Amino acid sequence: MRAILIHGAGDIRVAEVPDPIIKEPTDAVVRVLRACICGSDLWPYASKPVTPGGDRIGHEFLGVIEDVGSGVSGFKRGDVVVAPFVYSDGTCEFCREGLHTSCPHGGLWAREGVDGGQGEAVRVPHAQGTLVKLPVGEDAALLPSLLTLSDVFPTGYHCAKTAGVNERTTVTVIGDGAVGLSAVLSAKRLGAERIILMGRHKERTDLGREFGATDVVEERGAEGVERVRELTGGVGTHAVLECVGLEQAVDTAFGVVRDGGSISRVGVPQFDKVSYGFPEFFRNITLTGGVAPARAYIEELMQDILEGTIRPGLVFDRAVGLDEVADGYRAMADREALKVMIQP
Amino acid sequence: MRAILIHGAGDIRVAEVPDPIIKEPTDAVVRVLRACICGSDLWPYASKPVTPGGDRIGHEFLGVIEDVGSGVSGFKRGDVVVAPFVYSDGTCEFCREGLHTSCPHGGLWAREGVDGGQGEAVRVPHAQGTLVKLPVGEDAALLPSLLTLSDVFPTGYHCAKTAGVNERTTVTVIGDGAVGLSAVLSAKRLGAERIILMGRHKERTDLGREFGATDVVEERGAEGVERVRELTGGVGTHAVLECVGLEQAVDTAFGVVRDGGSISRVGVPQFDKVSYGFPEFFRNITLTGGVAPARAYIEELMQDILEGTIRPGLVFDRAVGLDEVADGYRAMADREALKVMIQP
Repeated sequence: MRAILIHGAGDIRVAEVPDPIIKEPTDAVVRVLRACICGSDLWPYASKPVTPGGDRIGHEFLGVIEDVGSGVSGFKRGDVVVAPFVYSDGTCEFCREGLHTSCPHGGLWAREGVDGGQGEAVRVPHAQGTLVKLPVGEDAALLPSLLTLSDVFPTGYHCAKTAGVNERTTVTVIGDGAVGLSAVLSAKRLGAERIILMGRHKERTDLGREFGATDVVEERGAEGVERVRELTGGVGTHAVLECVGLEQAVDTAFGVVRDGGSISRVGVPQFDKVSYGFPEFFRNITLTGGVAPARAYIEELMQDILEGTIRPGLVFDRAVGLDEVADGYRAMADREALKVMIQP
Repeated sequence: MRAILIHGAGDIRVAEVPDPIIKEPTDAVVRVLRACICGSDLWPYASKPVTPGGDRIGHEFLGVIEDVGSGVSGFKRGDVVVAPFVYSDGTCEFCREGLHTSCPHGGLWAREGVDGGQGEAVRVPHAQGTLVKLPVGEDAALLPSLLTLSDVFPTGYHCAKTAGVNERTTVTVIGDGAVGLSAVLSAKRLGAERIILMGRHKERTDLGREFGATDVVEERGAEGVERVRELTGGVGTHAVLECVGLEQAVDTAFGVVRDGGSISRVGVPQFDKVSYGFPEFFRNITLTGGVAPARAYIEELMQDILEGTIRPGLVFDRAVGLDEVADGYRAMADREALKVMIQP
């Protein structure tokens, strides 16, 4: 079969790799219908050292069950399924309380002998705990929106949930990438009436307005903070959804959060420490969020997609075959594409 | 009248000062029945530069109304009242939502022409929003416990509340000072069944057990972390109540918090930044807490004290008159006394 390998920064190739097979009784093999490129894939694309032989990559996919191990029940060949971006056993104390990302038997795709999602097929460890069956056919028009359940939409949703967004909270979303836009959609779904989106790419912020943003602030840094404060009677918003991961975005978050409010961050942090001394103490600022336990949210969010009330798949503005994935990475890195879907 | 003045580090004196009078229609004058020394008073006691003339100090007191301004209703001469450690107008949007510490008209005692609480009387700004009437007499045996409503008990309670303590959360309390012990009492009140107290002063941890601690860990640093992890099946506790304010305590908090858990801090932070990068991201750790809006909690907590179900006043292990306050500071700084009550 064919899969995407990364050989170092900027070096994405498609290659022949061995077909996946069941190795453990808890495995399943999934033929990939749709995968996609994540903003977090752009970090290795920017900085990975040269890797002779290449490494698998990708952690967002949905597909069709081809085979299941003897220990997997509830799934059969032909089922259409989506995989969250962290696999997990579904039975440990963390999985049971909805924090699948801390499952001691779980892990990331494309690490330590586990397949990446960008390819024709994937061996899925702990398939019963990991996969969620989708009640659709292989050619469903909803596949792009359902694909977002693997990462980007639950990540935005986790951001809004952990920040405590509800119908009484005002919200600022920092970042107009696919996660930021998903966070807008999530805040809207949770009832927020005032959602300020900070971003400067018009086609993206336009989609943000479609997803529920009531205001767009193009300015960055101190100017952006001032603008959000102007829009909120000087006090800032109860919830700030930081969907970038850079220190500057965190600084902006502290600037626009209301006293007593929460900053939730779901962008992979490109920093080690944050300010949390006396000013934040006296303002009662909460810092929350983290890697999203996507698995915990899939069933809930899937319903809205199936009913057609939300269309998170609108974040995909380009679709490519495996041969064009390298160009898909380039396009996302150059901000020419918002988010690229892969159809193997 | 007489009041306590601080003339610099280690230099606490009692002095004659002008009697307080009504300056604004929203003022009240309160004759102090009981005041006390706070752990946070020990920071200026340790490091304040020499201040000729001295500054008022103290922010915890209860007393009797002597006079009220024309704009104050609901209070009259003779009422016994308690004051939270931040005064506030009671009518702004922050006060209405229970974050009185962010009231734009509020402020700290013993700053900018406002009296300190350690003295015979205090002019109370925004008296109607600030004071809470206590349905007791001037000689009530409950005065020590009611005095804790001004700061130490609501501070511990804020710590437990913001950390999300309930009957399903396991809890670690870091620090066996009066705030830490109040946090234990608060966690117990909120239903926590497992409360691990980290502290090494036996008479204090004994009081912690009386307040509800189920386990005491004497070890500090890495050893202490290991001990808490042993007690919790290797995973740590859902809530960590950081009641010290030092960087080492925050490090310990990260070590003992369970993935997906919350660290709440209510000790005045003696640091500027905290670790909040990739490990904390992947573990979904929340940082919360801050200066306690004591005013928001007084009515609720007062009921339990009046009914006799809790006795937070047990944190006072010494009572002094104004002439002995300097020695009270020394005793607290030397950890000879846990918390010193002042009877002017």
